[in-house]
Amino acid sequence: MTVAPAIVERLCAAAGPGGWTMDQHDIAPHLVEARGLFRGASPLLLKPPDTAAVATIMAICHETRTKVVPQGGNTGLVGGATPFDGGDEVLLSLARMNRVRAIDALDNTLTVEAGCTLAAVQQAAASADRLFPLRIASEGSCTIGGNLSTNAGGTQVIRYGNTRDLVLGIEAVLPDGRVWNGLRALRKDNTGYDLKQLFIGGEGTLGVITAAVLKLFPRPRDVQTAMVAVPSPAAGIELLSLGRGLTGDQLTAFELMARIGLDFVLRHVPATADPFRDRHDWYALIEVSGGDSPGALRPAMEALLETALERGLAVDAVLAESVAQAQALWRLREDLSDAQKPEGGSIKHDISVPVSRMADFIARADVAVRALVPNCRPVAFGHVGDGNVHFNVSQPVGADRAVFLARWGEVNKVVHDIAAGLDGSISAEHGIGRLKRDELVHYKGAVELDLMRAVKAALDPRGIMNPGKMV
Amino acid sequence: MTVAPAIVERLCAAAGPGGWTMDQHDIAPHLVEARGLFRGASPLLLKPPDTAAVATIMAICHETRTKVVPQGGNTGLVGGATPFDGGDEVLLSLARMNRVRAIDALDNTLTVEAGCTLAAVQQAAASADRLFPLRIASEGSCTIGGNLSTNAGGTQVIRYGNTRDLVLGIEAVLPDGRVWNGLRALRKDNTGYDLKQLFIGGEGTLGVITAAVLKLFPRPRDVQTAMVAVPSPAAGIELLSLGRGLTGDQLTAFELMARIGLDFVLRHVPATADPFRDRHDWYALIEVSGGDSPGALRPAMEALLETALERGLAVDAVLAESVAQAQALWRLREDLSDAQKPEGGSIKHDISVPVSRMADFIARADVAVRALVPNCRPVAFGHVGDGNVHFNVSQPVGADRAVFLARWGEVNKVVHDIAAGLDGSISAEHGIGRLKRDELVHYKGAVELDLMRAVKAALDPRGIMNPGKMV
Repeated sequence: MTVAPAIVERLCAAAGPGGWTMDQHDIAPHLVEARGLFRGASPLLLKPPDTAAVATIMAICHETRTKVVPQGGNTGLVGGATPFDGGDEVLLSLARMNRVRAIDALDNTLTVEAGCTLAAVQQAAASADRLFPLRIASEGSCTIGGNLSTNAGGTQVIRYGNTRDLVLGIEAVLPDGRVWNGLRALRKDNTGYDLKQLFIGGEGTLGVITAAVLKLFPRPRDVQTAMVAVPSPAAGIELLSLGRGLTGDQLTAFELMARIGLDFVLRHVPATADPFRDRHDWYALIEVSGGDSPGALRPAMEALLETALERGLAVDAVLAESVAQAQALWRLREDLSDAQKPEGGSIKHDISVPVSRMADFIARADVAVRALVPNCRPVAFGHVGDGNVHFNVSQPVGADRAVFLARWGEVNKVVHDIAAGLDGSISAEHGIGRLKRDELVHYKGAVELDLMRAVKAALDPRGIMNPGKMV
Repeated sequence: MTVAPAIVERLCAAAGPGGWTMDQHDIAPHLVEARGLFRGASPLLLKPPDTAAVATIMAICHETRTKVVPQGGNTGLVGGATPFDGGDEVLLSLARMNRVRAIDALDNTLTVEAGCTLAAVQQAAASADRLFPLRIASEGSCTIGGNLSTNAGGTQVIRYGNTRDLVLGIEAVLPDGRVWNGLRALRKDNTGYDLKQLFIGGEGTLGVITAAVLKLFPRPRDVQTAMVAVPSPAAGIELLSLGRGLTGDQLTAFELMARIGLDFVLRHVPATADPFRDRHDWYALIEVSGGDSPGALRPAMEALLETALERGLAVDAVLAESVAQAQALWRLREDLSDAQKPEGGSIKHDISVPVSRMADFIARADVAVRALVPNCRPVAFGHVGDGNVHFNVSQPVGADRAVFLARWGEVNKVVHDIAAGLDGSISAEHGIGRLKRDELVHYKGAVELDLMRAVKAALDPRGIMNPGKMV
């Protein structure tokens, strides 16, 4: 089965000159996700220039029941933007729709098209002396449309929320080709169901987000960054709570990292150094930002660190004295994903639990995976300020990579069962896609699954939008 | 038409002893909303004690196609909780479900049942040294279930968002009686559509919210409050932007008020006084809160006021020197709604526009309503930090109240057309209910209305949940 030539011809015409390719060499990078877990096939990659073209494309697909896989920067890690291998799906890239439509510093709003990279969005905000606070590792290549469709999280959620919280309005093309103009720039608007919330985090299964009005914030005048050695994850969580209180809720990042993660970074990433003289078991990277002037938050950060040391919530602490030092501390955290690669196979998790249960989760998961795979190396790190930890498991030293990775599902099950048992989530920020679709059915209650299917059927009755993803 | 006795009997049994009344004297207060704009009829008021009883009630209503009107504190002002006069709807009060189920200071979460008053929720948070930041005039009697169902706004939205932004999870009974347990306490959870967003702001048309997990925040250690005389609404908006920047985004309230509003308060509310020696045309009430210790934000507030005076964005300013002084300033704003009553009939509006267009809106609306009703008295006030203004219009002095109020729809149309022309909303925070249902059809696009109807049909196929409201 594939897409009929007559349909392909109509779709290409709709996308316009330069708006499509059937060259499999050009299409190839769009058929695989970054970790190589999923591959698929598609005869056609569409790159429409504007919303009207997307609308025409979707109308044709609706009429002809042609399946569509929307794609942003293709940086998602759950196969949500990868077609299946039937070759009967067309790829719809939003990459060419990358204009900044409007920016208003007084409104603190930015209107952008879906194909803008996150970095371009951040830059547009900065050029108006404003902050767009979404910050994730792939910001140079991911697109804001993808960020919205997956409700991206990242490192600033504790203060600014997930992507969902940063959106005032969207424009979306529905599965039947109609355009919903929900591009409102209003802080308050109680006129009916908040429909944008369905498309945000909807993983492209309900329609195509083509543009959005984003919330901007004042650019922080001061940023204080510290690395703290903490005696345990539990102490880290106490420190988090203390920090929010002592800084007037200006904590903007709180990342936890196990020693093994720091070892990996120091071993594999050039020009990194341990900020402490002694080895410690756990580290917290803390950022406080805001304030009315440079240095304004330094007393609060110093007070926090002193109090933490006094109360035994910290063993040692390093406060960055310059932007360069702050960046060096962040690098230890941000390069951790890459630093795992030379250590062999790594089985990934992206779980969340209520913040108060984080230490319990880490302890239980650690015991459980070591029991399942002797000598495996759990590398817990992540956004524990949000109860979100990437509890990745590196292979035993010297083990066979393929044999280890073959246990992916088995390890996932153990870790996800523990998260679920602590009222947690099996996907905190990366979404469901293809990777966790079947697991979702296992962990979600029947009522919620029914509700999701009812919404899907109501908005996409022909089931052409990113089929087989999420629901 | 009414509800068959056999159905009434089953519903009473489901609600249990003390869980229902058919006494029309007891039911009467539930049949009218606070402003008296809407009245209705119902043979039965149900007050179930718990979620299981709500589920049984809804299952019976689903089976028998009996219409249900959920009700919280009955403080909404758009008729959303008032039955129609056919007498074929049963009232479902959540008032008895008023337990605090759990509070966790480390998680910063509070799990409450729908019938808790907002004041009780605030108090529960405070007892754990935390803040639940929703603040609205009716907080003593409105319920959190109603706040969620209407996505209440209030005075702290600029910093903390609307009710929608303060909710992590909900428990809801669906129209067919199934219970959806979405009571998650997670800061990040990307596992499918964010279904709670449909029920929040859904005005009880999709199901019954029975409980919620709310976000808590550190209790601010410092609060600075100032009243500023501003030369114009446009200057007020500039001051808002300046204030967010100069305080490290710790501005938590920014209310604008026209002089006539202050005059009403000084005339009708005992023990109030003009904080300024001179008369001014416009006032902004500014609150900055947060900080690590009492007084921490005073320098920032002083710097803001000085800068505003230097730049001509302020004509005069009063900074509260005590909690009592701050409360006195807030009273001038909060008593304004009541102070309008002795001035005769008042035609209400609850519009929002993008913040940058607020001054334009006020200017245009002022001219338009004065042209329509000579000598009428516009009283603009509200949460302009969110682009939300209650542009109420008091009757001309000495005019006939009933004759003036008969022009309600006509005045609404003029004001709402101006808001819509500025990309605004006809209901910023009060919702649609019965009051604005027909207007909604006029102002919303066809695509959005279709989407809303599709969602309604998917979740409530028998149309028994609060029928005739919103959609």
